[in-house]
Amino acid sequence: MTFDISNTDPNSKARAGVLQTDHGQIQTPIFMPVGTAGTVKAVHQRELKEDIKAQIILGNTYHLYLRPGLDVIEKAGGLHKFNGWDKPILTDSGGYQVYSLASTGRKIKEEGVTFKSHIDGSKHFFTPEGVMDIQRTIGADIIMAFDECTPYPCEYGYARESMDMTHRWLKRCCDHFDATQPKYGYSQTLFPIVQGSVYKDLRVKSAETIASFGREGNAIGGLSVGEPAEMMYEMTELVTDILPKDKPRYLMGVGTPANILECIALGIDMFDCVMPTRNARNGMLFTTQGIINIKNEKWKDDFSPIDPGLDNYASNFYTKAYLRHLIKSEELLAAMIASVHNLSFYLWLVGQAREQIIQGTFKAWKDKMVIQCMQRL
Amino acid sequence: MTFDISNTDPNSKARAGVLQTDHGQIQTPIFMPVGTAGTVKAVHQRELKEDIKAQIILGNTYHLYLRPGLDVIEKAGGLHKFNGWDKPILTDSGGYQVYSLASTGRKIKEEGVTFKSHIDGSKHFFTPEGVMDIQRTIGADIIMAFDECTPYPCEYGYARESMDMTHRWLKRCCDHFDATQPKYGYSQTLFPIVQGSVYKDLRVKSAETIASFGREGNAIGGLSVGEPAEMMYEMTELVTDILPKDKPRYLMGVGTPANILECIALGIDMFDCVMPTRNARNGMLFTTQGIINIKNEKWKDDFSPIDPGLDNYASNFYTKAYLRHLIKSEELLAAMIASVHNLSFYLWLVGQAREQIIQGTFKAWKDKMVIQCMQRL
Repeated sequence: MTFDISNTDPNSKARAGVLQTDHGQIQTPIFMPVGTAGTVKAVHQRELKEDIKAQIILGNTYHLYLRPGLDVIEKAGGLHKFNGWDKPILTDSGGYQVYSLASTGRKIKEEGVTFKSHIDGSKHFFTPEGVMDIQRTIGADIIMAFDECTPYPCEYGYARESMDMTHRWLKRCCDHFDATQPKYGYSQTLFPIVQGSVYKDLRVKSAETIASFGREGNAIGGLSVGEPAEMMYEMTELVTDILPKDKPRYLMGVGTPANILECIALGIDMFDCVMPTRNARNGMLFTTQGIINIKNEKWKDDFSPIDPGLDNYASNFYTKAYLRHLIKSEELLAAMIASVHNLSFYLWLVGQAREQIIQGTFKAWKDKMVIQCMQRL
Repeated sequence: MTFDISNTDPNSKARAGVLQTDHGQIQTPIFMPVGTAGTVKAVHQRELKEDIKAQIILGNTYHLYLRPGLDVIEKAGGLHKFNGWDKPILTDSGGYQVYSLASTGRKIKEEGVTFKSHIDGSKHFFTPEGVMDIQRTIGADIIMAFDECTPYPCEYGYARESMDMTHRWLKRCCDHFDATQPKYGYSQTLFPIVQGSVYKDLRVKSAETIASFGREGNAIGGLSVGEPAEMMYEMTELVTDILPKDKPRYLMGVGTPANILECIALGIDMFDCVMPTRNARNGMLFTTQGIINIKNEKWKDDFSPIDPGLDNYASNFYTKAYLRHLIKSEELLAAMIASVHNLSFYLWLVGQAREQIIQGTFKAWKDKMVIQCMQRL
């Protein structure tokens, strides 16, 4: 994997770059749609590519490991072959899900984490080494280190010990990753994850530790877990000032359109979040003009397109009134339209950000756009 | 509306024709995907047109009347404008739903039917005249008469009285339809419905009565409601022998691929059924090779396309193993893929039937295909 920064914004820390993988180029800053179980919910693969113009999607190791299971994915020849998505894929490490979904009977020890499947209650054991093997088998282009994602709020002592263990786990991840080979003939790379909750000294220490591993890219975890946005920005800036400038930086699980724009300004290159798809299913639309709750009465007979500011089919072909009818009627097409629309908006937003960075006009545009795209219509 | 029969099969009563509406041509025999609430469930409008190659879809008057309501549809300029489907639409009369969905507190009288909404319990009154007005407002190209659809089994006396009332209602439907005008500048036509349960004398009387109205097309209702297939075929043949040869014949709510092929052989031109979409959502696939229960273990690592015998995206791009994973994981994409696939199969089937009729080889092909497409894989 290579990463080249072509432009930096004169008035912020924003950068525009190109990440090259064996499954193609990713133009940064980028948003990665979440495809938990090997499918971006309610979206066809060709819509992802042609309408949304996604360049990389995310898969969840925890979910894919449990279902369909590694035997099926390996027989298919990896996740790309299994789901037909031939562009880059990033997988998380399963850590976050082990803590959030499989909390009953979960035990975190130095060796690894024992947990019960949220599907059938079966018992499983994840270790840093095992999770590297799992992601090798899934065949992600970008593999994430196995970490502990601390909740918010988190007591200082716990945050420090957890961070130290995450660092020790990272050593084991790197050793095992470097001692193993890709399974399907294309390169895979490993990103470590900065932790440290909302404590400045821990974040600094973690960022320095992670940077010292010298991997091809770095991630920031443990944010967007309930802390105030200002705290997230503060931690992000602290960390991006330490992480190497010439490597891509991935802020995990972030966020709202405003969060993304602010964090691009702080030097983040990659984002993922379930918000565009999850909120779509609840009738919340992010548009170029602001936020729409499509269930509101006011859209009942608004026969204008959902968002003519975007150039995809769903946002232009369907009207607000029709989408409102579909969601009120609990029709599957509602989730389908709203998901394509919201993801198209997110990809449009990062694409616009990239253009503005290249033009050197990012900062002023960002300040305006943060207000515009977060206002309630 | 015009209907021209170009070919008749030498060895059956099957016919190939062209139905011309102001929203375009329909090549018969045809299957009409059901779009209950103005959406064919889990299918985008462009998929309906480009992948499934649907030529006409059905809307349910009962559902559309309740939600979004006539005010919204009329403001939109009719259902075509509201949902963006610019090819022909047929609406049922709401009769069937009033009996099946809104049975609590429903009262059938000579004047009309009082029922409670299954959505909010609100009280409504449908009359033959009112239902004509509703369908005028929805803007269907083909409007159905308001009838009583008797259940199976049905006592003879009830079936006879119900049929007589349906005939009296038909007179009122025709009088009101003929005294009113389309609302959106294109023609609408009214199809009456043969009833009579499974009683030959009633079916004969009803078919003769319906034929005597001399409308542009005729429908057969009250079948596919639980009676044995042989009984359905017997009633259908009895009726098609009486209904005028030069008018399209629509068999309502039918059916399996085998049912459709057998009834094409009996002279039916139009079909609709929720089976392809409803069964899709439950993991039952109709393919060119037979029926697949995609939940079965045997498809777990079958990485072949769903059905290379069809030429649409979903059937070719996605594999059986991937679709099985999606439906086991209760992912929305499962319903999306399976719905496009099943509808594509249904449209392929009637398209093939049409070709065979034109070639004069329908009967032998039909006998083979009935077995092939109903076998369990």
